[in-house]
Amino acid sequence: MKKVLREGAHGDDYDRLCENPEIMRKTVALLLCSMLLPAQGPPKAIGGFSPEAAKRELELEARFDQGLNRQNFQQWLKRMSGKPHHVGSPASKETAEFIAAQFKSWGYDTKIETFYPLFPTPKTRLLEMTGPTRFTAKLAETAVEGDETSGITEGNLPVYHAYSTDGDVTGDLVYVNYGLPDDYRRLAEMGISVRGKIVLARYGSSWRGIKPKVAAENGAIGCIIYSDPVDDGYYQGDVYPKGPYRPAQGAQRGSVMDMPVYPGDPLTPGKPATDPNRAPDPKMAPTVTKIPVMPISYGDAEPLLRALTGPVAPADWRGALPLTYHVGPGPAKVHLKLEFNWKLAPTYNVVARMTGAEKPEQWVLRGNHHDGWNFGAADPLSGMISVMEEARMISELAKTGWRPARTLIFLAWDGEEPALLGSTEWAEMHADELQQHAVAYINSDGTGRGFLRVGGASTLELFSTQTARDITDPQTRVPVLDRYLASRKVAGGEGEYRIAPLGSGSDYTVFQHHLGIPSLNIGFGGEGGGGVYHSNYDSYDHYTRFVDPDFQYVMATAQLGGHMMLRMANAEWLPFQASTTARAIRGWTNEVIKLADDLRTQTAKQNELIRSGALKLAADPRKTYIVPEPQDDVPFLNFAPLQNATGRIERAAAALVKVDPAKLSAAKRKELEDALRVAEQKFLSADGLPRRPWFRHVLHAPGYYTGYGVKTLPGIREAIEQRYWQEAEAQIGLTSAALGAYADWLEGAVAKAQP
Amino acid sequence: MKKVLREGAHGDDYDRLCENPEIMRKTVALLLCSMLLPAQGPPKAIGGFSPEAAKRELELEARFDQGLNRQNFQQWLKRMSGKPHHVGSPASKETAEFIAAQFKSWGYDTKIETFYPLFPTPKTRLLEMTGPTRFTAKLAETAVEGDETSGITEGNLPVYHAYSTDGDVTGDLVYVNYGLPDDYRRLAEMGISVRGKIVLARYGSSWRGIKPKVAAENGAIGCIIYSDPVDDGYYQGDVYPKGPYRPAQGAQRGSVMDMPVYPGDPLTPGKPATDPNRAPDPKMAPTVTKIPVMPISYGDAEPLLRALTGPVAPADWRGALPLTYHVGPGPAKVHLKLEFNWKLAPTYNVVARMTGAEKPEQWVLRGNHHDGWNFGAADPLSGMISVMEEARMISELAKTGWRPARTLIFLAWDGEEPALLGSTEWAEMHADELQQHAVAYINSDGTGRGFLRVGGASTLELFSTQTARDITDPQTRVPVLDRYLASRKVAGGEGEYRIAPLGSGSDYTVFQHHLGIPSLNIGFGGEGGGGVYHSNYDSYDHYTRFVDPDFQYVMATAQLGGHMMLRMANAEWLPFQASTTARAIRGWTNEVIKLADDLRTQTAKQNELIRSGALKLAADPRKTYIVPEPQDDVPFLNFAPLQNATGRIERAAAALVKVDPAKLSAAKRKELEDALRVAEQKFLSADGLPRRPWFRHVLHAPGYYTGYGVKTLPGIREAIEQRYWQEAEAQIGLTSAALGAYADWLEGAVAKAQP
Repeated sequence: MKKVLREGAHGDDYDRLCENPEIMRKTVALLLCSMLLPAQGPPKAIGGFSPEAAKRELELEARFDQGLNRQNFQQWLKRMSGKPHHVGSPASKETAEFIAAQFKSWGYDTKIETFYPLFPTPKTRLLEMTGPTRFTAKLAETAVEGDETSGITEGNLPVYHAYSTDGDVTGDLVYVNYGLPDDYRRLAEMGISVRGKIVLARYGSSWRGIKPKVAAENGAIGCIIYSDPVDDGYYQGDVYPKGPYRPAQGAQRGSVMDMPVYPGDPLTPGKPATDPNRAPDPKMAPTVTKIPVMPISYGDAEPLLRALTGPVAPADWRGALPLTYHVGPGPAKVHLKLEFNWKLAPTYNVVARMTGAEKPEQWVLRGNHHDGWNFGAADPLSGMISVMEEARMISELAKTGWRPARTLIFLAWDGEEPALLGSTEWAEMHADELQQHAVAYINSDGTGRGFLRVGGASTLELFSTQTARDITDPQTRVPVLDRYLASRKVAGGEGEYRIAPLGSGSDYTVFQHHLGIPSLNIGFGGEGGGGVYHSNYDSYDHYTRFVDPDFQYVMATAQLGGHMMLRMANAEWLPFQASTTARAIRGWTNEVIKLADDLRTQTAKQNELIRSGALKLAADPRKTYIVPEPQDDVPFLNFAPLQNATGRIERAAAALVKVDPAKLSAAKRKELEDALRVAEQKFLSADGLPRRPWFRHVLHAPGYYTGYGVKTLPGIREAIEQRYWQEAEAQIGLTSAALGAYADWLEGAVAKAQP
Repeated sequence: MKKVLREGAHGDDYDRLCENPEIMRKTVALLLCSMLLPAQGPPKAIGGFSPEAAKRELELEARFDQGLNRQNFQQWLKRMSGKPHHVGSPASKETAEFIAAQFKSWGYDTKIETFYPLFPTPKTRLLEMTGPTRFTAKLAETAVEGDETSGITEGNLPVYHAYSTDGDVTGDLVYVNYGLPDDYRRLAEMGISVRGKIVLARYGSSWRGIKPKVAAENGAIGCIIYSDPVDDGYYQGDVYPKGPYRPAQGAQRGSVMDMPVYPGDPLTPGKPATDPNRAPDPKMAPTVTKIPVMPISYGDAEPLLRALTGPVAPADWRGALPLTYHVGPGPAKVHLKLEFNWKLAPTYNVVARMTGAEKPEQWVLRGNHHDGWNFGAADPLSGMISVMEEARMISELAKTGWRPARTLIFLAWDGEEPALLGSTEWAEMHADELQQHAVAYINSDGTGRGFLRVGGASTLELFSTQTARDITDPQTRVPVLDRYLASRKVAGGEGEYRIAPLGSGSDYTVFQHHLGIPSLNIGFGGEGGGGVYHSNYDSYDHYTRFVDPDFQYVMATAQLGGHMMLRMANAEWLPFQASTTARAIRGWTNEVIKLADDLRTQTAKQNELIRSGALKLAADPRKTYIVPEPQDDVPFLNFAPLQNATGRIERAAAALVKVDPAKLSAAKRKELEDALRVAEQKFLSADGLPRRPWFRHVLHAPGYYTGYGVKTLPGIREAIEQRYWQEAEAQIGLTSAALGAYADWLEGAVAKAQP
């Protein structure tokens, strides 16, 4: 058995390798050396496949690659990005119907499933400075030369924030940096409150929806968010159309719904929004913002910032506008008036199915959204055309006699931009069958030139590595995995591949965090850059000039997604790795323990600086400085249940590594597979996370105060961060219970798998 | 004896304290607590004084403080900053004569000692962009409202760099960030050479004279240096006259002489420039720049930067102008034409002496320069008026029957700005007697609101601490030492006081680094900020509006300098501390060993990234990226001689701590004092540092490639940094020899001091 394992059919070599950094380093070196050698050598191992099956699989993938057609990318992108196609628009319906027609033409069992969530569009948008000088924000993204669609106004959704509340407010302006809790603490130290005022925050450092939420928590009555040129404007590079970066009039639309509480229709959390005839009342939607909020360009922000006085903003608050950043409050006084059409929008999800030949009850899902903020060439269409081409080519393979063992389901979501509407409603509708049948959900969204970007469930780490190992980077002709590892090494990392857990920001959210279905989010990026995100300038012309001019990386994404679908569909046994999950949990366990320890040290140190008077003495007496109050000492928490549960998972996972599915009877193998297929769901907690029961996964969630950014062991971690000590203890208990349930399940699976 | 020591007359309690961080922390806490108590308690110990003498000294200092007169600051500053008074100007002579007259009127034996160094002034200054667009730099600092002197043009020295060579060059422009060696390495990686081109560098990160030196080393034919608003313009705060920061037309004059090689007259290194009738030939001056160089404002820099294309500058190269920073080369082509009057300038040093009553052969020196770049209110007059008031008040004390035990010499230097001309020529003239008689040199320069700033010889650490302990911060009413320590703690330090070794940048240079006379540089700063350094706007109006409006910190500087003079003059035995020197040397020894080790690790890592191809793979293939060549491996160096010599110093210093001067006979005490007085000179190496023999101190020097910034154990450290392995070994030998000579000397002193 040992020998068989060493021949590497089951991926546990990889596990051993990951536990031994020295071997890992050498392996990486070998991988890099292999670039110089002809592509020969021993046959490649693929988790879930016997050596013979792996060989067949690689041949199939080679045929898949050969059939991919770059022309399709160009044609589909051009067509679908030609009109504003946000959810609820005529073009959104057209796009869904176009995609569905394609899938149908390729032989997929295709339908459009429609939902009716709340989706506000702007009716009144007014932002003006009423004193000390007058200025009315333009709020308009004008046409630019060489960008064909930038002049299209018909159906164009103007610059706004979806799910801002209606409001008509006037107040002194305060600049609040990124508008995060720490920024308000800094303001308090400067003696500045935002109560009754309107805050001006810059984009960045968190998901945008966090900013109005925190502003409202601090008593602000309105919120303006602008794109500082330091982040994606001229500071980063030449602006559009000369270069890819955000021009002065460019602004970032987007959702500001409180999605870390729950995504999807704000009126039907946990349930599908199927009724088109409801009379929606936005006041009943807890995830709509408490105060009006509005995005603006840096062209519109500059006069406002220039009119502020008060303290000079701290160094790390300053952007790249040619002025001195002051905090205020005032004398700039602004008037913000927003009214929205609060309507239900038909949300068209395309669902295309190819039934599996051997295990039709196991579903492999692949999705990307099709709606955009207007033209949406990069976001989302660059990913969507990749998914379409994958599906087309798989259908071609199917015409040659091959059939997937498992069922493939391709999904083109509508309404992702406002609130992951399409995917959330659909998955809430089909929750039970998904939890019964879904094996994995593989998501993509916009993709671009550069490095491999894969995030997802730890159990899919080996699966991701091996797929990335077998795809060639179009620019450097080495495996995309090698290029990624090289970039990690250059950035100071050790050069191992570690899959990053998912926060939020795309349609995997409901699958991973609500239903416990192992998910991946895949794509490429990091080169090219740009600053047209969620603006009118995310266009075909911009994409083909600056992002991925010859669709090389759309092609690589199609290969990556296609191979993943083929492998997951064809695997003789599911390529899940409990051992990588165990390793990840151990790491996160150590992290939260360290977090509490560090916070204890840091609190003690800070309290000493406060109590000794050092903070006061070190401050400039000519500037207002309010010494913060000492904080409560950080207690020692009982992490033992968490450590013990993690230990059980490690032991069970180690036992599982010793099981060779190839040696099991077909019945036992099926029993094992059925157990592993749903194992991830054991991480779901019945009560969900504190204050957001929709998020049920105890291993990860988007941060309550970061938005997209992931928090691992979120119940525990966020309780510590928020200094809720009792809650932290309770969450250690709840998390440990879920971990214990997973350990039980694994142990059971191992027991069943004994010959 | 132990008991006597514990009573703390000799400062060794402080030593013990510094070796024990726990006691140190408690002591600091006690010091801070003492703020809340009435200023009572046990009598304060002062190094060099018996308890009774310390009591008398403190009473004397209290009388000194009471007599200081703020009106003088205001009157003298107004008067002396009223006209441009750079070296060679009529106002410089007037200023020297005014200062001399004051000293004379206070009873000092006063003279003006005049030297004739080379000092170039501009004849032709032309900077124009000849393509792709045309632009002629204004090179003019216009008058601003509310600044009385900013409109004075008579005698005004325009914006230029002193000791730039003449030149008339035209070439493509390249933006080189700070223009330091690492920046050229980055350019090489981008495939860009500056050979035959004109570089545009920004001020900062090094002394300005380094920039043309490194540019010439890299083949550039001209150099322009501008003040980016990110550093001292609108990015930092409101610009003058609204706020203290640099306006768009403000530029920084200054010297670009290669002063890390030697300061002073470029034609008479090591010798005084006494001959007014020489015909100076700038071509014979090795410290004049190799290429023409010119400072400009950001107003003048903006069109040049805007005209560059080529790669976008790396993120850490970008400033705060509202444009995309490109590197070039070109298409901006510039023409730089500079011609200078190469003349000798009479340099008037005021020397005022009060002969000591008991030890007239021991001289305590106190200096500040009086020349400025035009009005020079902050730099140097804020320090000069402090020195004058110290001298006046000491003369008042002398009228009451008190006389200093040692001789006091007050010095007002001319020609500091171009090249430390006055102090260097004077000290070169009097080198022998200074080495025989000088006890210490205490320097100041501009001073401002904020925190204690003291740098100097380690042997004076306790002396500095105790002086700072006894001066009250005018804003917070705690000892200036406590406020300094609080700021260190808040910045994350442990809260100990450690004197920083001196690099260069003011008139202590010749004393500390060339003659081996323990020196200090004292002042206050860090609050208020500003951006008028070396511009026309360093004026009375600017100083009194923004820097130190009510002269509180000029007053604190006068107290600090005055107390230091009184203590050094009156001490029963010199308050030198070989033990702090020993501790500092041990720290630096460990640093250079770690430097070599870190460089070895880093080189190996970098070479691996190069050889494995990771660097190439991680780079964007659409951008030019030249992988650097692997570097030679860092050998293991023999640090044993350095470690052994350091050990000997530690042992000798520990033995010296046990010697109680109070218990010695008068003859033995004198013998010990005479030995300690010249001990620091043992650190001078006969050959000086490699490629710059004028710098002779083996413990510290200004950095060859940093300028002002200090390098400790410079022979060894810079050899390692420059990867001169053989030189590093040789310098370990030479440095260790000097350390050995110091150890010998100390051992001899201890032996003599045995009863």
